[in-house]
Amino acid sequence: MKFSFVSLFPELLCSYFDASILYRAIEKSLISIDYVNPRDFSIDKHKRVDDYMIGGGAGLLMMAQPLNDALTHVNFKNKATHFIFLSPVGKKFKQNDAKRLAKKEHLCFVCGRYEGVDERVIETWADEIFSIGDFILTGGEVASLCLADAISRNVNGVLGNIKSLDIESFENEILEAPSFTKPNIFQGLEVVSEFLKGNHANIRTLKKTMALCKTRYFRPDLYQKIMPKTKETHEK
Amino acid sequence: MKFSFVSLFPELLCSYFDASILYRAIEKSLISIDYVNPRDFSIDKHKRVDDYMIGGGAGLLMMAQPLNDALTHVNFKNKATHFIFLSPVGKKFKQNDAKRLAKKEHLCFVCGRYEGVDERVIETWADEIFSIGDFILTGGEVASLCLADAISRNVNGVLGNIKSLDIESFENEILEAPSFTKPNIFQGLEVVSEFLKGNHANIRTLKKTMALCKTRYFRPDLYQKIMPKTKETHEK
Repeated sequence: MKFSFVSLFPELLCSYFDASILYRAIEKSLISIDYVNPRDFSIDKHKRVDDYMIGGGAGLLMMAQPLNDALTHVNFKNKATHFIFLSPVGKKFKQNDAKRLAKKEHLCFVCGRYEGVDERVIETWADEIFSIGDFILTGGEVASLCLADAISRNVNGVLGNIKSLDIESFENEILEAPSFTKPNIFQGLEVVSEFLKGNHANIRTLKKTMALCKTRYFRPDLYQKIMPKTKETHEK
Repeated sequence: MKFSFVSLFPELLCSYFDASILYRAIEKSLISIDYVNPRDFSIDKHKRVDDYMIGGGAGLLMMAQPLNDALTHVNFKNKATHFIFLSPVGKKFKQNDAKRLAKKEHLCFVCGRYEGVDERVIETWADEIFSIGDFILTGGEVASLCLADAISRNVNGVLGNIKSLDIESFENEILEAPSFTKPNIFQGLEVVSEFLKGNHANIRTLKKTMALCKTRYFRPDLYQKIMPKTKETHEK
């Protein structure tokens, strides 16, 4: 899997891949990363990449020409590139997208800055537009890191323990049960006692129940999806 | 505003503040950053920070002791620390949270790794638990960067152009209209012609209409919130 980041500030991104799981994935050639800066493609003599909005409006917009030429370059250098734009306007990125996109050969993340990107570049290039939530960032860079991180975990071989992928939150549209590690009592707070008894069938049942309670309390939207029958019963 | 990041991998985070708007905000002393590594607080002779889950389960969990001691240290060194945990279980972070938290003196982001954090540390310290979406990351680091970025923009003086804050997506629970910059025709694609005519009242009306259409199409959930009357009309 190759990730290309198209960004005016690639220096913000690079250290994220310098340690931990993603660093090991790069070492093992499971993923590779490159950065493309639209500024390098500007034909303006001052290497300008932004300009005022036509029709008025506060702030500046990323110009079409440098970005378009950067994306043309990425598309020419790679085959089967899937272009992803990060924008608060996009659809919400979810765990299913992370799994689906982990099967692609090459993902190109286009990171907007300033007030965003000339709409015509989005129209021309976007295969998908993703948002990571209803909040505004200074640029798409950190959102693209979120996607790259979530997708990488689903690339074959990146996670040491495949089992981790199966039991985590959202895999079954349910939040994970609380977890504890040693010591059994920490500053007066005890581990849930059933966890200490070692009856794995009981522990599994209890964890399932706790996970359901947690989901019902914190995420009623998810709970309704997994528990349509429960809901019907209540309604009768 | 001060941000503390409690993380086992602070080296992943630091370059994000090395350029652009956030760098300038640090230069101007509008925000300051520090990093605290729980590993430095481990009393284990091998500086271990993780252990198996009690009661079984795949993967490792961040132990209570090193993290608890790291947070005690942060709390002792600063006054009025607001502790934020990043977890897929948390409530969804939104633009209103970014605005609200921008008024705090000191935010401490606690970044989980591995299968997460011993629940007792969360119970003891968390003022709030946030999620940035229904997907799984290798750790809370990049999620905490999203929060820090979104919050920083709302700290007084960080954004050059205050007007930018008023017209952007979600400020009025509505997505932004498409934007364009020079040239008027780029590779055969024209700017919306009304934008070129210079009648600002007309442009404002058109932008509002386009923003509503975009919101209705891409985010019916937001549209319903802002347009309850429209919905009623349709239903009659």
